[in-house]
Amino acid sequence: MRVLHHLPLSAACRAIRLALAEKGLAFELVEEPVWERRPEFLARNPAGDVPVLEESETRRVCGAWAIVEYLEDAYPATALWPRPAAARAECRRLADWFAAKFAGEVSRPLVHELVTKRYFRRGETDWAAIRGAHARLAEHLAYIADLFERRRWLGGEALSHADLHAAAQVSIVDYLGGVPWSRSEPARDWYARLKSRPSFRPLLVERIPGVNPPPHYGDLDF
Amino acid sequence: MRVLHHLPLSAACRAIRLALAEKGLAFELVEEPVWERRPEFLARNPAGDVPVLEESETRRVCGAWAIVEYLEDAYPATALWPRPAAARAECRRLADWFAAKFAGEVSRPLVHELVTKRYFRRGETDWAAIRGAHARLAEHLAYIADLFERRRWLGGEALSHADLHAAAQVSIVDYLGGVPWSRSEPARDWYARLKSRPSFRPLLVERIPGVNPPPHYGDLDF
Repeated sequence: MRVLHHLPLSAACRAIRLALAEKGLAFELVEEPVWERRPEFLARNPAGDVPVLEESETRRVCGAWAIVEYLEDAYPATALWPRPAAARAECRRLADWFAAKFAGEVSRPLVHELVTKRYFRRGETDWAAIRGAHARLAEHLAYIADLFERRRWLGGEALSHADLHAAAQVSIVDYLGGVPWSRSEPARDWYARLKSRPSFRPLLVERIPGVNPPPHYGDLDF
Repeated sequence: MRVLHHLPLSAACRAIRLALAEKGLAFELVEEPVWERRPEFLARNPAGDVPVLEESETRRVCGAWAIVEYLEDAYPATALWPRPAAARAECRRLADWFAAKFAGEVSRPLVHELVTKRYFRRGETDWAAIRGAHARLAEHLAYIADLFERRRWLGGEALSHADLHAAAQVSIVDYLGGVPWSRSEPARDWYARLKSRPSFRPLLVERIPGVNPPPHYGDLDF
């Protein structure tokens, strides 16, 4: 059985879960406490990080970049990159935007301040960092709105990894109750379209012990 | 003419310069002072970052992930990913390792402390951060040595983007005089092999005003 080593609040892992589900590939989830740096896991991925996709004992793919491209190489039937080179480049630009820029500016600082620090009792919450992340979030939502007003999906005419990476990032922030939906209607329309896909269902019902999402988190009509 | 918008001390840009040269694709370099956030450049890449590859007025590719994969899609003659899916996945894992992990742990903090802070007069040098980066660097050099003792190149039997991303990162640290070559012979052998390729020459002769590399930086025999 295909296994994805993951963490529930890792946006990169969520993006891969969405991609696997969109492609109709069954998989088992195994949670990996990466902070324990378990030797068995480091033997699987020396980087010590998730996601890690295991197709078999000998076929293991580490990291979101490698997994996304591997899935396209190995399972092209449901393509999540468009065919023309320029359209692919545009979708990859956006996938990278959310995987790196949104993560660095918004989701990673919020998870760090609101979850990691509390769980591991690592010092006081830095409210300036949280305010900064929310200011950046507003810019990213405006960018999503701008793209979605010009296109059917973020990267173009078809659903792509760009939408999945963006929705994975947004879902983390939404779980932590941080998305001002009433102030960004086009971004909400785009996210509602993602949320209503069957691939999204498992993320919406998942709960992290000790961290409760706001009531609207699982609602398709929010 | 193909244009690469870049910065000389950006490892991501150096990795793309190496890839273009390995593929025999001529290009012009245009330096972009990203900190100025010039509207003309933000219109090209709203992320405001380099590298940006412009093939023509209408074909523009932003960010290392998108550019690397675009080059493989558009110019497959000199392939820098191996063909089998598992081998590609391994090379992408390593390219990502250097582009994200090495950059975050070693090259970005060193450039920040030793160049950015001085150039922009942004406060005191944080020597603890520099020591931390050097400790991580020793681990990365050991990993390079470990890979290179088992393989012809870092990702396998052929030169790949994994080597180019790794060498680009290492070249930045070497420019700043931070690589303890005498303590890592296999890593030095691997880097010497990269350095002696014609694609590397332009990086070795480039000088950043006000930041001088150590005497061995440009030497093929170091």
